[in-house]
Amino acid sequence: MSDIHYNKEKGSKLKLFTPGPVFVPERILNEMAIPNDTHRSKPYEEMHALAKEGLQKVLYTKNKCLIFTSSATGIMEACVRNLVKKDEKALVLSIGAFGDRWYQICVENGKKAVKEGVELGKAITPEFLEKVLSKNNYSVIFIQSNETSTGVYNPLDDIVPILKDSGALVCVDATSSMAGVKVEVDKLGIDVCLASVQKCFALPPGLAVCSISEEAIEKTSQVKERGYYFDFLTLLKKNEVNQTPNTPPIPQIRGLVAQLDHILNHEGLEKRFQRHLQLGKRTRMWARDANLEMFPEKGYESNTVSTIKNTFNIDCAELVLMMLKKGFRIVNGYGSLMDKTFRIGHMGEITLKDLTEMLNALTDVISGLRLKQLK
Amino acid sequence: MSDIHYNKEKGSKLKLFTPGPVFVPERILNEMAIPNDTHRSKPYEEMHALAKEGLQKVLYTKNKCLIFTSSATGIMEACVRNLVKKDEKALVLSIGAFGDRWYQICVENGKKAVKEGVELGKAITPEFLEKVLSKNNYSVIFIQSNETSTGVYNPLDDIVPILKDSGALVCVDATSSMAGVKVEVDKLGIDVCLASVQKCFALPPGLAVCSISEEAIEKTSQVKERGYYFDFLTLLKKNEVNQTPNTPPIPQIRGLVAQLDHILNHEGLEKRFQRHLQLGKRTRMWARDANLEMFPEKGYESNTVSTIKNTFNIDCAELVLMMLKKGFRIVNGYGSLMDKTFRIGHMGEITLKDLTEMLNALTDVISGLRLKQLK
Repeated sequence: MSDIHYNKEKGSKLKLFTPGPVFVPERILNEMAIPNDTHRSKPYEEMHALAKEGLQKVLYTKNKCLIFTSSATGIMEACVRNLVKKDEKALVLSIGAFGDRWYQICVENGKKAVKEGVELGKAITPEFLEKVLSKNNYSVIFIQSNETSTGVYNPLDDIVPILKDSGALVCVDATSSMAGVKVEVDKLGIDVCLASVQKCFALPPGLAVCSISEEAIEKTSQVKERGYYFDFLTLLKKNEVNQTPNTPPIPQIRGLVAQLDHILNHEGLEKRFQRHLQLGKRTRMWARDANLEMFPEKGYESNTVSTIKNTFNIDCAELVLMMLKKGFRIVNGYGSLMDKTFRIGHMGEITLKDLTEMLNALTDVISGLRLKQLK
Repeated sequence: MSDIHYNKEKGSKLKLFTPGPVFVPERILNEMAIPNDTHRSKPYEEMHALAKEGLQKVLYTKNKCLIFTSSATGIMEACVRNLVKKDEKALVLSIGAFGDRWYQICVENGKKAVKEGVELGKAITPEFLEKVLSKNNYSVIFIQSNETSTGVYNPLDDIVPILKDSGALVCVDATSSMAGVKVEVDKLGIDVCLASVQKCFALPPGLAVCSISEEAIEKTSQVKERGYYFDFLTLLKKNEVNQTPNTPPIPQIRGLVAQLDHILNHEGLEKRFQRHLQLGKRTRMWARDANLEMFPEKGYESNTVSTIKNTFNIDCAELVLMMLKKGFRIVNGYGSLMDKTFRIGHMGEITLKDLTEMLNALTDVISGLRLKQLK
């Protein structure tokens, strides 16, 4: 099985149906090979400006948009270091592994935080918040839009306004939903909305982006020991002149600009969101037809990553391996859900045709594995 | 002058003689366009392992080598957060703007540090260290190999052993020298030797690397509040299985593996160092012939970036612009040296022929500007 080894010459031939990094279309791969000027040049500044403008449109916001040389986790740490004072208490609303990460980041940075969670597979609801918010006053609240491990989408439209009403700053990790699901930053009042680009943007990894509200900027100026690399104020100052304080991943930024042009001017934002909705529905329909249950509570299933219960108790590692042989990569469950679920990423540039092709292969593989169980 | 604007289709046509990001050869640009598997796949792990092994060879070390999704500044912050305890005092040996950055990183992270520096253009010498080290006991010492602003190369072979004798951990920012100048990590006893890849490695930016000693790892386990994103122990744990805790810039890592193969198995390390030495000498000879003085003190000139005094008091911005028209990018001075110096980067894959071609153009441009002065 040579195609699942490192291939220096040709790279991976697999079609990725992963929760990120995802399949990158050829036109974007080609962008990565275009030579660039330095990050202190006019061509770079023009590119940076286009990235900022495009991100504002994708996020429905007038807030400033920033570029980070890090993964999304870097911006999560930036939020914790820049927005929480030593004597304040933050609230982490966790519905899975990536929510738990917010909490760990708070702890590792010496910030006080309370973690409130729900059972895996469930979402944060207004009812849940009523109980949680009555207990304490929080200065900053951290939450995921889409929990990439459980495949649950938090109903942001219902819950962010409630969080904002509490007077807290609200930071949303939209890593596996930004540019695939509509998140209206200004309408909801999200203070920091962050993501990395190797998910719904369908770019190679190495770049993360966020929007930041005036309120969050004002708060940052009151917080001490913010560090150097992830300091919002240093980043914002350079961002004004369309630069970054340190050398950014220029090929990925060129890719982002090309992809923003594609999303906004060719596919269209609304159509892109619709496509992702269709991909989610199609996957759920397939699961139902295959007598498989979705892991998330009904009504809260993500449209970018489907986490499916391992109802037939098949060997998930073998499932993944058999799919590799057919040219597709899907992944097993995350953390404690490793063997209890498997996951299908359907974001970025995946089409309904691509998905159907993969699901047909998956049906065959599962049938084969079930037959093997009977022997 | 359309070629100094952002060109969506073709990118930059300039030949970069910059102190980074530098000119990237086509074979490496092509690597950037090769499709990759995810960072939790066997092909990635194989690539990661090759990167680790190659870096050990470039650095003459048995120490573990790590990969960071950040610029080199990210690893500088990592060193400060992971290695300095709250009640300890660190020493920053600064010979310019990037040395000053180490100090600022200490301050912004609430770590106690003393900055000891020399006049711009001078290097840290054993004599200087005798005075400095007698004053105080330091737990960690931060220093640059090559100061990219002044073009001074610190005589690491002479000074690192003295620093190590003081009992301190020694962190070397080798950003603009790693893979261009021989730095023997194990022989000198360097605890952390770090760099980004858009300098002497001639890769596109977005990735930083370092070696880390057992002593530094042991120290890390004693330091509290190290944060999450740059925590050495978290990075080391995943590094053992050839992975990173968060999604890394996979295209740049593929590029690094290809470039390590080129450096080690095609050009050869010693030949690469020799070539950089020749590039440095050639540039200094040109400067002498053009009646221009080098900014660094004689004997401490960098062989990767030449900082040249603006002896004729020409308009450096115009100098840069005129060179752009000829297809070359050189840069003006850094920070306080903005108009007092200009800089030529000659690292990565630049050949003596490339350099000569550029220097001939530079001779013409300077003649033109001097004639203009006389009018």
